[in-house]
Amino acid sequence: MFKEKYFSGLYTDFYELTMSQAYFLSGKKDDRVVFDLFFRRNPFGGGYTVFAGLEDAINAVLNFRFSEDDLNYLESLGFDKDFLDYLKDFRFKGNIYSFKEGDIVFNNEPLIKVVGSIIEAQLLETMLLNFINYQTLIATKTRRMYFASKGRVVADFGMRRAQGFAAIAGSKASFIGGAAGTSNTYAAKVFDIPPIGTHAHSWIQSFDSEYLAFKRYADIYPDNTTLLVDTYDTLKSGIPNAIKIAKYLEEKGYRLKGIRLDSGDLAYFSKKARKMLDENRLHYVKIVVSNQLDEHIIDSLLDQNAPIDIFGVGTKLITSYSQPALDGVYKLSEIGDRPTLKFSENTEKINLPGNKQVIRFLNQDDEFFIDGVILSNEGVESVSLLRHPSIPFKKTEISKDLKPERVFYNIVDNGKLCYNFPPLKEVRDFSLRRFEQLPSEFKRFVNPHLYRVGISDKLYTLRHNLIERRLEHL
Amino acid sequence: MFKEKYFSGLYTDFYELTMSQAYFLSGKKDDRVVFDLFFRRNPFGGGYTVFAGLEDAINAVLNFRFSEDDLNYLESLGFDKDFLDYLKDFRFKGNIYSFKEGDIVFNNEPLIKVVGSIIEAQLLETMLLNFINYQTLIATKTRRMYFASKGRVVADFGMRRAQGFAAIAGSKASFIGGAAGTSNTYAAKVFDIPPIGTHAHSWIQSFDSEYLAFKRYADIYPDNTTLLVDTYDTLKSGIPNAIKIAKYLEEKGYRLKGIRLDSGDLAYFSKKARKMLDENRLHYVKIVVSNQLDEHIIDSLLDQNAPIDIFGVGTKLITSYSQPALDGVYKLSEIGDRPTLKFSENTEKINLPGNKQVIRFLNQDDEFFIDGVILSNEGVESVSLLRHPSIPFKKTEISKDLKPERVFYNIVDNGKLCYNFPPLKEVRDFSLRRFEQLPSEFKRFVNPHLYRVGISDKLYTLRHNLIERRLEHL
Repeated sequence: MFKEKYFSGLYTDFYELTMSQAYFLSGKKDDRVVFDLFFRRNPFGGGYTVFAGLEDAINAVLNFRFSEDDLNYLESLGFDKDFLDYLKDFRFKGNIYSFKEGDIVFNNEPLIKVVGSIIEAQLLETMLLNFINYQTLIATKTRRMYFASKGRVVADFGMRRAQGFAAIAGSKASFIGGAAGTSNTYAAKVFDIPPIGTHAHSWIQSFDSEYLAFKRYADIYPDNTTLLVDTYDTLKSGIPNAIKIAKYLEEKGYRLKGIRLDSGDLAYFSKKARKMLDENRLHYVKIVVSNQLDEHIIDSLLDQNAPIDIFGVGTKLITSYSQPALDGVYKLSEIGDRPTLKFSENTEKINLPGNKQVIRFLNQDDEFFIDGVILSNEGVESVSLLRHPSIPFKKTEISKDLKPERVFYNIVDNGKLCYNFPPLKEVRDFSLRRFEQLPSEFKRFVNPHLYRVGISDKLYTLRHNLIERRLEHL
Repeated sequence: MFKEKYFSGLYTDFYELTMSQAYFLSGKKDDRVVFDLFFRRNPFGGGYTVFAGLEDAINAVLNFRFSEDDLNYLESLGFDKDFLDYLKDFRFKGNIYSFKEGDIVFNNEPLIKVVGSIIEAQLLETMLLNFINYQTLIATKTRRMYFASKGRVVADFGMRRAQGFAAIAGSKASFIGGAAGTSNTYAAKVFDIPPIGTHAHSWIQSFDSEYLAFKRYADIYPDNTTLLVDTYDTLKSGIPNAIKIAKYLEEKGYRLKGIRLDSGDLAYFSKKARKMLDENRLHYVKIVVSNQLDEHIIDSLLDQNAPIDIFGVGTKLITSYSQPALDGVYKLSEIGDRPTLKFSENTEKINLPGNKQVIRFLNQDDEFFIDGVILSNEGVESVSLLRHPSIPFKKTEISKDLKPERVFYNIVDNGKLCYNFPPLKEVRDFSLRRFEQLPSEFKRFVNPHLYRVGISDKLYTLRHNLIERRLEHL
């Protein structure tokens, strides 16, 4: 689905096509432009965002094509023959710069920069946003659960409640975010993620008794059985039967892997279960919980000292229930040599004009200190100050103690991939390591500290002058 | 994507496969079962739900296969050779019954019933839920916006904020729900939905002036131009320029189609815009609005008499922002001749056992009056009473004035499709007609009347006896 040689150019908002035709018919098709993809707020009121979706998005860019069938469809809608001829040979031939997948990113800094002809850059807008918005959202949501779990296991159980085919990319993004595995077998295969799962209530119901169902399952998977204990009654039936099975497995030289609680008060039941297991010298049997978990419930459970080893998270993870969309946008910041603005009464919605890059500055402990958006033709060495985009007196001095770090990479050069995508496990490892470099005050759920993203003096002046000039025109 | 001859059998939760292998190795593979797909609450605190996703789900059922690649993957995980041989020839050979796509449905009644061998029915669980949960959710969310718009046009502009590939099925479901068209060109082509869209801010920014950008666009699309008026300043620049263009088009014998407002207070700006247009005798120019709309904002705008003709709805529609998942479940209700229960301390979570069907009763005005879940071997004529599933004294008499209506259809018979899926436009028309049969008290947003779904006396007795028997065992 992701790695085919053809990704339909129709996977785009219709207006990208009508606009592109208009660019074509206006003789603007070779105009050189810069577009920035960024978001305006970290999701969930959080203090950071985990960037994901890049590899899939770039694969789609490189395979973005119009098949004969696609062109016939556009012809049936009345599109111009010359424009359709142009689309027939369409290949992205521009440049793309981006953060690495898995990096920690922040609001109002470009995550991806597309430089190319106005048509090729415009046509990619919807697809890039569609891919990056969702995967970044899910990676971030999962990271919050990973953070709340304090080193315990978080697993993605969301497939059945996912928004249709979102399940596939969602499971991938949750792995980048920190999930240890997924119930989604398709994603597990395609992306080499550990598949996780044992049995459902229906397995229990299909036998005359819970005990028989447990025993049969343990006979088949003696070294990998986690028993779901809430089909009839967790404390009176499920856990006692699971303990019998654990003893039965011990006699055969095996160990019951775990029990799973899927309903009721998970703090209460997990404590009861741990006690019952421990009283039977079954300290090794792990407790898995599921049922409407999210980062706040995980937090609360651990706050109550609930002895839980594994959190199976479904709906709230895969749909990013508390905020199901990231507000990513894609704005034109330069055409030819002319930097451009989209104006707004809301000052924060006025974009950063010009061809830019992002630099991160680390403190002496190698922690993230401030990100700087500067013009591409500025030298990093020359940056001695970063400014708030709108408020003149808000400035941060870039002292010599701070270490500039490259975070923005050239991914596609003249339409050719010039970057090696690491295997998914490495993306996950990189992302978790980067998270260690983010000071804890940005990680808390309630009123996190706001990470600074400043702009260079030159960019500030450029933006300021463009705003002034625009205001004069009104 | 939907109509290929192969739909991977790995598109399932991993535990469906481990359970299926266990059924296989326990000699249970030919056990005959009944599974019901249903949800427990109408989404959004609403009084109804629009059923969608059936055709896509059934296509996936009929093409559910394990390729050699899929089987190799399972082998690498240690699955049993005999089981893999069984999967190699896997074809769904059972029966499926369902409501028609687009029908109005309610909580706690089976929407889909799968009858087949325990493995084939079990393996479909995740995929059916994944398809039906999302499409039903989006169709219902869109219907609420359609209802709020009181006959005006609602268009799906959600692609860029959709949860990745959810965009495709989401646009389809929104059309069933009542959207008049979509910005999603891919979905428009595949499902024959009207594509909608004109231009973005980048078109305006790519010219030296807004007026020139408008004029060029109108020259290219003289009979189909809707101008986005908020790039620089809606009242001082956008609308005055649009009025000039409308006059310019009139001179050439054309009419400006519309203007689009994408920011600011839409009630205020739409009234100002209407006034400015009308003062220039441009009564025919339509006003399109977009920007974070949902059913409540549409309702509020019309309540304020905002003169809006077309609502472009994005994020809140395609992600079903206010509730991004439907709580659909899939429960075993019979194995062999034995009806089964999944027990729960929460009485409402105890499922309806046995092989069932659904009948709808209409009143003399052909409006929906009550739905009845009855056993499949009961005659409709014999139903003189429908009961609340748990509360003994809550009963509704089925008087002779009520007309029973068939709502549950056989879709797949012994693995063969035995139902003609109508074209999508007919599904949409059917769905909107059915909505007319739902009395208005179920349609309001705040505290809607709760539609009754009763069960027959026989089903009540069966469930009651099974619960009693289960309690004796504890």
